[in-house]
Formats: sequence, structure tokens, C-alpha cells
Amino acid sequence: MTEHELVRELAEKASTKIVMLVADGIGGLPLEPSGRTELETASTPHLDALVRRGTSGSSIPVLPGVTPGSGPGHLALFGYDPLEFRIGRGALEATGIGFELGPNDVAARGNFCTLDSAGLITDRRAGRIASEESFRIVERLQQVQIKGIETFVKPVKEHRFVVVFRGPGLAGDVADTDPQATGVAALDPLPLSPAAARTAEVAKEFVRQARGILAGETHANGLVLRGFATKPQLPSYLDLYKLRAAAIAVYPMYKGLARLVGMTLVGQAHTLDEQIDAMAACWNDYDFFFLHFKYTDSTGEDGQFAEKVKRIEELDRAIPRIEKLAPDVLIVTGDHSTPSLLKTHSWHPVPTLLVAPTCRPDGLEKFSERECLRGGLGMFQAKHLMLMALAHGLRCAKYGA
Amino acid sequence: MTEHELVRELAEKASTKIVMLVADGIGGLPLEPSGRTELETASTPHLDALVRRGTSGSSIPVLPGVTPGSGPGHLALFGYDPLEFRIGRGALEATGIGFELGPNDVAARGNFCTLDSAGLITDRRAGRIASEESFRIVERLQQVQIKGIETFVKPVKEHRFVVVFRGPGLAGDVADTDPQATGVAALDPLPLSPAAARTAEVAKEFVRQARGILAGETHANGLVLRGFATKPQLPSYLDLYKLRAAAIAVYPMYKGLARLVGMTLVGQAHTLDEQIDAMAACWNDYDFFFLHFKYTDSTGEDGQFAEKVKRIEELDRAIPRIEKLAPDVLIVTGDHSTPSLLKTHSWHPVPTLLVAPTCRPDGLEKFSERECLRGGLGMFQAKHLMLMALAHGLRCAKYGA
Repeated sequence: MTEHELVRELAEKASTKIVMLVADGIGGLPLEPSGRTELETASTPHLDALVRRGTSGSSIPVLPGVTPGSGPGHLALFGYDPLEFRIGRGALEATGIGFELGPNDVAARGNFCTLDSAGLITDRRAGRIASEESFRIVERLQQVQIKGIETFVKPVKEHRFVVVFRGPGLAGDVADTDPQATGVAALDPLPLSPAAARTAEVAKEFVRQARGILAGETHANGLVLRGFATKPQLPSYLDLYKLRAAAIAVYPMYKGLARLVGMTLVGQAHTLDEQIDAMAACWNDYDFFFLHFKYTDSTGEDGQFAEKVKRIEELDRAIPRIEKLAPDVLIVTGDHSTPSLLKTHSWHPVPTLLVAPTCRPDGLEKFSERECLRGGLGMFQAKHLMLMALAHGLRCAKYGA
Repeated sequence: MTEHELVRELAEKASTKIVMLVADGIGGLPLEPSGRTELETASTPHLDALVRRGTSGSSIPVLPGVTPGSGPGHLALFGYDPLEFRIGRGALEATGIGFELGPNDVAARGNFCTLDSAGLITDRRAGRIASEESFRIVERLQQVQIKGIETFVKPVKEHRFVVVFRGPGLAGDVADTDPQATGVAALDPLPLSPAAARTAEVAKEFVRQARGILAGETHANGLVLRGFATKPQLPSYLDLYKLRAAAIAVYPMYKGLARLVGMTLVGQAHTLDEQIDAMAACWNDYDFFFLHFKYTDSTGEDGQFAEKVKRIEELDRAIPRIEKLAPDVLIVTGDHSTPSLLKTHSWHPVPTLLVAPTCRPDGLEKFSERECLRGGLGMFQAKHLMLMALAHGLRCAKYGA
């Protein structure tokens, strides 16, 4: 029996409310050995009070030592084994810019590049052209017309864009056209299975027309495509957990990830306060609330230790407003660590707390990486957090008699 | 996606150096209840200093409660699931005496036994004849000639030996001839699959000729064979991890295990000091160094608590010389515990420390079984240690975007 079969069998309806507050990249490292992490430096009286009432632990997003991107990091928190469920690069990029993929769509990530007169790549990123410039060029690509196919080209940032082909009989297993080198021509989009033959033809025709349209451009006179992917098939929160789930996020990527598992996007919030307003406004309509806080990650990625500390303190100040809604289960965690020291996502376990009347206290005093090592949730795989959420919300039947 | 597929996808080249110092059987038990283990008794100022700078934890070699042999214990440390990758008994014995198995080889473990005039086994270990006596008899078996097959017979210890058949079309799935009882005849080596028919014939012919040669021996006038096995197919360190790996071990078994995963044997060391000399001499040629220290295990197996303490202190004194090489990641662990109290390998978790500039400190003060329980690596499966080594050496790409 797979874990998903188990949870589908055991999950049951109840009137309890579960809030999962994801502080993106919250885990950190000390700037000096044996010093304090960002979380240990921050003043977090409200999170500390939750820790004293709750059960805490350290979450391993994928496997020990494996650094996750946002996709696998969130899938795991949502209870989907990130090694079993993968979101193809193209689908993740589309998701990240808020493009809702349909069942007949294949998405690919595109890069503009510079070609010489012989058609060989001289710059794989087209001189990292400015986003505004890229937006203009993407606009020109809307002229592409492929019979029987609806084509969407959307800008991402700088030289990056997303292309989505919509039509019957498309498949994701098409080879990248990016040769990952300069001095050579872009590759043909070859089908990796018979089912992808039509998609490969469509991609080839897209490239042919695009090359014509871009011919006069100085930097972005070529393009490469990679990560062809269809929308991943993920069982929904309602199906798996019998939870009506709402997502309150600011950034498109996290909205997209939530939508992939069947959450409803709620509100148009730009600040944490507005996110809590949005949650309060729909409190009676949902059982589960995914609240995403981005800035603990972005400050970490920028290497701004002091800024990350401030963002953690901002998060802490929001806790009383969340508590006022009286969720039955309140979880505070992250999808991965983002130490300011490393300026990137990392593999280090993520401090996690869970508060519910059904918690077993573990005697911890403070919400920190070090304290959480001694917590009652132990060192656990992130994909099991939803099981613990359901259990503490009394939403999980006994397994076996 | 399997864990090996994942690591193969994520591992990337870097200039960092990783040292894995395996203190065989280092974990122990107190001789008296509530007393101290060997490691807790030893004075280990250098290991303790590493613990204060690093992240520590408890390694579970196979599964909780499962006591590993040296084969599974090391495979796990090397990152190979010891339940998925098995080294057949014959192949492990051959490896243990330093016999390098080739792709056309089948190895079996042999025991000399005593037969009565009716050919029934009266002593399954031939009176545990002395090794010298056994060596003489093994020498006589070199006369065996089998058409199209090269036969190697090598002594192990006392009544034990290894036989290797080399030739095309051989397979490992041949039944043991040891009836595991006295008063009965040795069994025929039966093929367990059609592919093993030829191997079974070869083994039968070997036994027939050997019986003739041994007929005049007093004790060792018969033999039984078991654990027929080919060389296990293990992906190499270079393939899996993109690591050029060197092994610096004294005993043939550990050299053999390292060779099975594609490590290069370095040096002709007999002492830990000589091992470190050998490592230093090839420091620029490799990325990963497996250093094996045997005596924490052998003293444990002999039940010599005080001797094991001394060996741990010897290990501790070697740490500064290793640190002088400035490895980016230094791991000290064991393949299993060998408590002097039990005089054998045991299932108890193995104290493990990892030091790197990318470590998250966990506030531990001493390298001991008790302290490691509260460490930042938690209670982890040994097979994940290599992932953590790669991560801390910044040799592992992000998983997913």
C-alpha cells in the first residue's frame, strides 16, 4: 500500500481548521561558526510561545543532503513525495509566471540566444538582454501561427520566456534544443517517444517561424527550448485529504504550486497582513489554509542576514492575528533552508512547529534550528507533515482494527 | 526516481576534498549499567573539538536493530542501499582475502570437513585444523584441472578457503553443498536456474577431483562449498558521485570493498600514521579519501574494553595530521558498533561527526554515543551519509527549480 493510498483511506471529514504557514527558506546558518542563525538572532516571542505549547522538529525536504527547489520543497510540504511526483521544468516555469496549464498543454522554457551568420550560437543568453527588451521581442512572437495549435509565448525575466502549445495529442517527451554550448547550432526538437512526434513537429515549426521573425534582432536573433513538460497529474487535497484547501500567496510560483494540488487561490494580498485578512474573510469556507511568506527566502538569497532577521520578526508579529482565528492546528515551517551565508537554498533541515490541543509537549523553549533538534516531531521527512496535520486535527481514522 | 538516479543527476564536479575516516566498530556499550562506553571513557580532545565545530548524529547501518557485517556496513557508508546491493558470500570472502574478481568469475566459500568411510560428514569443520595445515592442503588442490575453466583455490583461515572458477558462461545461482548437519553426505551443487547449469557441472567436477586428492588426509578428507556468487555490479564512485576516490586501508577485506565501488587503492600502509602519509602523498590526485581504521573493531570483538579505549585515543591523536591537509569535509564514523561487552558487531547506532564550513552547529561538546543522539544529523540511515558529504562539499546541485 502506498502512503497516498493509506492517507486516502484514513482521511476523514471533520470541522477542524488547519493553517500551514510556510516561511520560505526560514532555516539558516550562523555567519560565524558556533554563532547564531538568523532565526536564533531574531526576537520571536510569539513563535517561542507556540513552541512552548506545541511539538516541534526538523523537516528534511527531500533526503538528507538534498537541496530542493521551490517545486519539490512545496510538493513535500503538501504531502507529495518529491521523488515520485516531479514537475517538469517547462510546467514549473509556466506555473511560476501564473500561467494555468490545461490538460492539452505542453510547456517549454525558452531562452533567447545570439546566432552568427552561419546560424551558430555565439551567446546562449543573448547578452542577458533587459526584461523590457525581452518583453518587446516576446510580443513579436505572438505572430507565430501553427495549424491546429494554440501557441502562447510569455516573458519571464531577461532572456527567459515560456512557450505553451495547446492542442490535442501533444506530449512532453521532446528533447531540449539547447546544445549547452556555443559555436554550434541549436538542436532540433526530437521526439523521445512515438507519442511525442506531433509535439516535436509543432516545436520545430515554432522555431522555424520564430527564427524568421527574430532575424533582424541584434542580440536575440535565435532561441533554444528545453524542459518540455505537460501539467503534472497530482491527486488533489480534496481527493487525498478530504480537505477544502485555500492558498493565500503573493507570488505566482506558489499560487501555481498550490493550484496544482487543487487548492483555491484566495485574495489579492500583497502583504502578510493582507494575506491574513484574506484568510479571515474565507475562514468559514475552507478547512486548510496555505499561507506563503516569501521574504525569509529572498533576503537569504541576497545574503542579507540582518534583513532576514527583520523578516522573521515581521512573521513573528503576525502570529497573534493568526491565533485570533483559533485554528485547531497551526503549523509554521519552511520548504527548505536559505542561509544568508550561502545565498542560496540549502539542504539543512527546516525548523518546524505544530500547535494543537492534541499536541504532546516536548519541553522546548524557543523556535530555532538548535532547539528543534530536540523536538517531539524529531527529524522527519517533509512529506509526512500533512499526515501529522491531519492527525492533530482529528481528521485521520485508525489504521486497522 | 531511485536515490541513485537522483544522486547521479545532482552530483557535480568541484574542487572540494572529502575525507571519510571509518573507525570500524567504534560504537560501544558500557561494561556496567549507567557506566561509560569505550568512546565515552577515552580521552578524545581532537574529536571533541571537531564535534564542537561540526554537525553530529547517529548512523543506522541497515535498519534499526539490524547488525551488519563488514560488507553491508561499508556499502551503506559508501551510499549503496545494503538491502538492494548484496555481495554474495563467495564474492565477499574472495574480496576479504584480496582476490580481485573478474567479470567471468564465480567464487564460493569452502570448508574442509571430515568424512567417514561411507562418505558421511562427521565433522563439518575438519577439527578446525590449523591454518598452516589448511594452507598445505589448499596447495594440493591446485592440481585440479577442469577443461575450459581456470580454477583458483585460496586459503582463508583454519578450515576455510575460497574457490574461484573463471570461464565464460558461469553464473552464481548454484545451491550450497553444505548440508549443515553431520551424519549425512555433502549435497550436490545443483543449478538454481538454467543459466547456472554449466557452473554446477564445474563445481561437481571440482568436488570429484578434490575428493580424490584429499582421500588420504586424516581430518580434511572432504569439503563443502557455499555462497556461490559473481562479482556484484555496483555503480562506481566516479559514475555516481563524480568523485575520484582513493582508499587507504590496511586489511584486504576493506581494500576489496573499496575496489568494488571503483576506489583506487593507495599506499602500502600498516599503521594509521602511514595511512595518513599515503593520503597526503596523493592529496592532489583524488577528491575523496576513504581511510579505514580496523582496531576499534578487533579490540571490541576480543572483548578488550581498555584496549579499545586506547585504540580510540590513538585515532584521536591522528586527527590533527588529517586536519593539516585541510579537507573541506571531514567525516568520522564507523560501519557498525562493536561493543566489548558483546564481543561482536551490534545493531546500535554509530556515533558520527561531519565537519565543514557549511555545517550547521548543533551545540554538542563531545564525540560520544550519548551526545550524538542530540546532534544535527539526527538519527540517519548510513546510506544517506554520502549525500550529506556531497552537499557539505558543495558538490550537489539543487533538485528541481
